[in-house]
Amino acid sequence: MSKLDDKFARLGVDSAPGQEVRQEIEAPDFHGPQLDGTPVDFSHGDVNAFPPIPGSLQTFAEGFEEGAEQAYTEYRGRQTLRESLAQKLSEFTSAPIDAERELILTPGTQGALFLAMGASISSGDAVAIVEPDYFANRKLVEFFEGELVPVQMNYLDTRDGSGLDLTQLEESFQSGVKLFVFSNPNNPTGVIYSHKEVAAIANLAQQYGVTVIADQLYSRQIFDGRDYTHLRGLGLASPDNVITIIGPSKTESLSGFRLGVAIGPSRIVDRMEKLQAIVSLRAAGYCQAALHNWFSEPGDWMATRIAQHQAIRDDIYALLDAAEGFVARLPEGGSYFFPTIPPIGLDIVDFSKALRLQAAVGVTPGTEFGPQFTSSFRVNFSQDHEAAVAAMQRTVELVERYRLPSGKAAKLGSR
Amino acid sequence: MSKLDDKFARLGVDSAPGQEVRQEIEAPDFHGPQLDGTPVDFSHGDVNAFPPIPGSLQTFAEGFEEGAEQAYTEYRGRQTLRESLAQKLSEFTSAPIDAERELILTPGTQGALFLAMGASISSGDAVAIVEPDYFANRKLVEFFEGELVPVQMNYLDTRDGSGLDLTQLEESFQSGVKLFVFSNPNNPTGVIYSHKEVAAIANLAQQYGVTVIADQLYSRQIFDGRDYTHLRGLGLASPDNVITIIGPSKTESLSGFRLGVAIGPSRIVDRMEKLQAIVSLRAAGYCQAALHNWFSEPGDWMATRIAQHQAIRDDIYALLDAAEGFVARLPEGGSYFFPTIPPIGLDIVDFSKALRLQAAVGVTPGTEFGPQFTSSFRVNFSQDHEAAVAAMQRTVELVERYRLPSGKAAKLGSR
Repeated sequence: MSKLDDKFARLGVDSAPGQEVRQEIEAPDFHGPQLDGTPVDFSHGDVNAFPPIPGSLQTFAEGFEEGAEQAYTEYRGRQTLRESLAQKLSEFTSAPIDAERELILTPGTQGALFLAMGASISSGDAVAIVEPDYFANRKLVEFFEGELVPVQMNYLDTRDGSGLDLTQLEESFQSGVKLFVFSNPNNPTGVIYSHKEVAAIANLAQQYGVTVIADQLYSRQIFDGRDYTHLRGLGLASPDNVITIIGPSKTESLSGFRLGVAIGPSRIVDRMEKLQAIVSLRAAGYCQAALHNWFSEPGDWMATRIAQHQAIRDDIYALLDAAEGFVARLPEGGSYFFPTIPPIGLDIVDFSKALRLQAAVGVTPGTEFGPQFTSSFRVNFSQDHEAAVAAMQRTVELVERYRLPSGKAAKLGSR
Repeated sequence: MSKLDDKFARLGVDSAPGQEVRQEIEAPDFHGPQLDGTPVDFSHGDVNAFPPIPGSLQTFAEGFEEGAEQAYTEYRGRQTLRESLAQKLSEFTSAPIDAERELILTPGTQGALFLAMGASISSGDAVAIVEPDYFANRKLVEFFEGELVPVQMNYLDTRDGSGLDLTQLEESFQSGVKLFVFSNPNNPTGVIYSHKEVAAIANLAQQYGVTVIADQLYSRQIFDGRDYTHLRGLGLASPDNVITIIGPSKTESLSGFRLGVAIGPSRIVDRMEKLQAIVSLRAAGYCQAALHNWFSEPGDWMATRIAQHQAIRDDIYALLDAAEGFVARLPEGGSYFFPTIPPIGLDIVDFSKALRLQAAVGVTPGTEFGPQFTSSFRVNFSQDHEAAVAAMQRTVELVERYRLPSGKAAKLGSR
């Protein structure tokens, strides 16, 4: 069983968002008094602060009452829903979608990522991922026994695009990468890839025959009226090598229904459905009905929601910007900050434990997003506005408590 | 990509239950008039005929209203629910369960099977499966690149137990099998393993260090007051090598919520949770709330439901027993018949297409359950009673239409 032991050792979830309750803490040497305040779990969004799209429970109930038709859908999801979503999503992404062949409903975008990756690689295939990027990407590559090829995103060095190292990306493609996975807006930094960057990705993928999975989970939550480029809408890439993933779990707060969508070439979607048939059959039938209001939200519901998140972002940014030794880039989309903190006397995993125990604040350690992010943590700021700002103040205060003398700070802070 | 092409070619789902709508039929030479009647899809149960446990929508809605706590549970499922289920299931299976370490909620029992198998084998491991047995078992072995070792169940040769070939099972264990998967009651035949057979499986597994996955999805629907032996309740096997799978999708009709449970040693459950974290995160949070009434059904609701199924079974059995050339064993539990039909001029997949097109009856071809079952099909008789009996009459009539001369029938019918 050692091969399996080894494999699962690489799939650790102890620091994964929402799993912190399972940590068995051997209380490290945390000093100082408790920092009181409303507990905030920044590891994921708070659906109490930002509830689901109005009417979601009602459409679920209607699906339930409809009975068999909604309970047992095709593995790729109910046809009428796929048709309606294909229309909405082709408009959103500026490219046509064949509802019958090119779209599949999945149990969350996590399910979409799993199926898409399983349909695209087999053991030994090289997969390029971005650092930092969504932590499950690297775990999925491990699970499918692929070879991880990291490509750096210098998100702190630029205000024009993501800072993805395109030279490194091309080198990875040259070296035989089969698949490239990236999230846009980026999770955890909140940066948006520029049109130029997305076009470069498309051209390189075309040139080297690489399949691309674009995780666009946050692509409806764009701040400051910025431009957003859909890879599949470029008209540049061969549509045969692009899989687009999106879902209503974040901005729209439908995570409790576990729903996602993947759009891709029929060859890949067929494989994803075959895989879904043995993984979980389908996204829960009744839950699928809750998709009815997605992309059909009432009036200015989405605009209001985005503005509310932008306001929280601004207050947290002001706070981080003023905090000594912190470096943070202003998120352009999505609900995440990924600040770098000054050198402290705890490693980032222990710091996140101290923060939870001493300040009732949950964050995700940077090392979940790449081994080099030992001075960063991720916060999901989709929270009660006031509580989030207060929790970030406590976080800054706790960093200060564990901070090392400034000589070290200056040295390491320059990265 | 040829390795992947090959892998997915072995994962075909065209004849899988519920996927028939995706078949592109090149109308074969089906002759004779339409057989009219209420359409019946025997490929899965009809939740309109047998609706979910009363109050399921209500408990879902309460979970939804509860908000964040129910939306974002631990990957293994909400703690309070696991505690309540551990109590109910330990009573049901006659063996204790540690709610914190030994139980995980999954997206359906399909999800439980996938995670359990993924946590137990790696590529090249030999896996024993029963023929016939649930079709996904063999596909899962293919997906995880295991080596399939079939063990025959001579279900037509015995009325005492399942007819599992225990000699063949021991030989497979001797030859190095790592994992044995079986469903009890058996899907598709509806036979129950005797106490002696279950004890033999437990002893052999113990002796050869084989892990066993017992899929007990139908173990609450037992007919004629028969005994049922829970492998994990035997007190014989080392509990460290038994994984038990159960869920509310069948008798209880909660399939539209996609819920399952696996009980196993903490080592395996931990791995299953790690895998779940990258496959779909968790069983849909709000759906988990619908488990509240499971094993707490009102009054004699379960007894009535079982009696209703037993009555349908009896009527269909009488019909099959009287049909010339048919061989069927009376199901002892679950909702399936797996009759053998007399030789006809169509292969079983084409026959199932003809049946759907000419008689509005859906069945699952026997070849989904093992390549040798070319003269069998599976029906799920959890349907409207009257419609099911009428549909089975049409099925018998259509077999008669395509039947070959009796000389061939006698020759092949002797198996």
